Amino acid sequence: MAKKSAQVQSVSDIFRVNPGSMDLAALDPAATPIGPRSKEEAAGEVARIGEELDELQEALFAEGVGGGRRRVLLVLQGMDTSGKGGTIRHVLGLVNPHGVRVAAFGRPTPEERSHDFLWRIRRQVPPPGYLGVFDRSHYEDVLVARVDGLVPEDEWRRRYALINEFEADLVEQGVTLVKCFLHISPEKQKERLLARLEDPLKQWKYDPADLAARAKFSAYREAYRDALARCSEAAPWYAVPADRKWYRNWAVASLLLGALRDLAPRRPAPSYDPEVELARLRDADPLR
Amino acid sequence: MAKKSAQVQSVSDIFRVNPGSMDLAALDPAATPIGPRSKEEAAGEVARIGEELDELQEALFAEGVGGGRRRVLLVLQGMDTSGKGGTIRHVLGLVNPHGVRVAAFGRPTPEERSHDFLWRIRRQVPPPGYLGVFDRSHYEDVLVARVDGLVPEDEWRRRYALINEFEADLVEQGVTLVKCFLHISPEKQKERLLARLEDPLKQWKYDPADLAARAKFSAYREAYRDALARCSEAAPWYAVPADRKWYRNWAVASLLLGALRDLAPRRPAPSYDPEVELARLRDADPLR
Repeated sequence: MAKKSAQVQSVSDIFRVNPGSMDLAALDPAATPIGPRSKEEAAGEVARIGEELDELQEALFAEGVGGGRRRVLLVLQGMDTSGKGGTIRHVLGLVNPHGVRVAAFGRPTPEERSHDFLWRIRRQVPPPGYLGVFDRSHYEDVLVARVDGLVPEDEWRRRYALINEFEADLVEQGVTLVKCFLHISPEKQKERLLARLEDPLKQWKYDPADLAARAKFSAYREAYRDALARCSEAAPWYAVPADRKWYRNWAVASLLLGALRDLAPRRPAPSYDPEVELARLRDADPLR
Repeated sequence: MAKKSAQVQSVSDIFRVNPGSMDLAALDPAATPIGPRSKEEAAGEVARIGEELDELQEALFAEGVGGGRRRVLLVLQGMDTSGKGGTIRHVLGLVNPHGVRVAAFGRPTPEERSHDFLWRIRRQVPPPGYLGVFDRSHYEDVLVARVDGLVPEDEWRRRYALINEFEADLVEQGVTLVKCFLHISPEKQKERLLARLEDPLKQWKYDPADLAARAKFSAYREAYRDALARCSEAAPWYAVPADRKWYRNWAVASLLLGALRDLAPRRPAPSYDPEVELARLRDADPLR
């Protein structure tokens, strides 16, 4: 256990982005710097992680029922096909769906656009006790908004500080943020886009706009670099190598596990006397 | 496959409540009238059902992405310890959490109480393409509200018609309702309450108010009988024997599968020409 615990710790150290020296180009999206060496090994480890995640999440949920305000928010960002959806399926699928809240942020609706960019995000912050997941997030507002010039430069530049304030506020409210950038190579993206186009069951996931975004891969990389570097104040970013799905799943599951272990959620002590209640039920069952 | 399909069909026939002749007392909560005969057999069947559910749910989600408005809403009702939470864990855990929206309805908050009883419910109706789950629901407003006299009789009586209208409206909007009453015996409830009280890891799930509700078991049974009989207009109720957890899970999974098979969701045809896109990506990759 000591060894495993140490490893989870290092996972967070290894993938944590250093805001002072962000160089996404230097990070190999196919790297496996720690942990399992193969898909099979990863499957075994993920299953074990899942059991512990499930237990910890139940404890967190119980803590929330007992009035605790802590919760976890996993933020997933990454280019198309980087595996945000696959991570949700494989990692969040490990825990009780009752305690999970997934929110996906697509192109804003007219109503959403009529408010400030954080309005729709605030509405999806998980309640106490829950494990929330953002499939895309407020970071889109300094990514696609910047790359596609949806807002003037001074506006998206102002957003870094607003995001830092927002996240500091979340932390203040008891939210543990686990922000993962799923780092994929352009070659792997091409392979996955081709796979989507070639499989009739996957064609619905493809949008011709994906190629327009792909054409701007390096502009996105710059936008990601700045977002990760500038918005690591309230909570760190993790850059997860995402060219190998099994490694990506293992890494995100490990990061989530590390966060939950650090929280060490506790089921609340009963606000009643269990002995008294047991006696009531055993000897004076109210059901006649 | 024909045989399996026929069986799923019968599951819905067997558990469907006949509003004209509702007699909960005549339904054995430990019955296993169809399907697996043992926990082991049920586990195998549930795993197979899970694979098909997962595929169908992805198709439903894809349909929603393509502009379809259909969705499924599983409503779970039942006395304390009847297994609403366990059903969510074991049945909804079979599908991709990305497409699932779970909403739990506890005691209404002051804000919720300031609106009509359907206000908080409407806000949680799953969006198109999603599989929503209600852990308790608008039915609480004709159950606990009636048994505990939270509102005058004429008020809760009026609600049956309002619920029927609300559900007809949902159906009109493309929502398939799968309403399951998890039917548990008072003896099994006692056993499970004792288990909660005896296990420190489960004590947080117990509330002394559970015994007050238990004392009113027969009043609840009457309230359930009326709710199920009066609110089967827009969508049927299913009474699921819930004394055996493995049978309850199998039955709800089967009912959900039947509903999804009936919908036969289809991934949308691509709105683009896959050959054109393949050529663009293969021969004129926009990424330079």
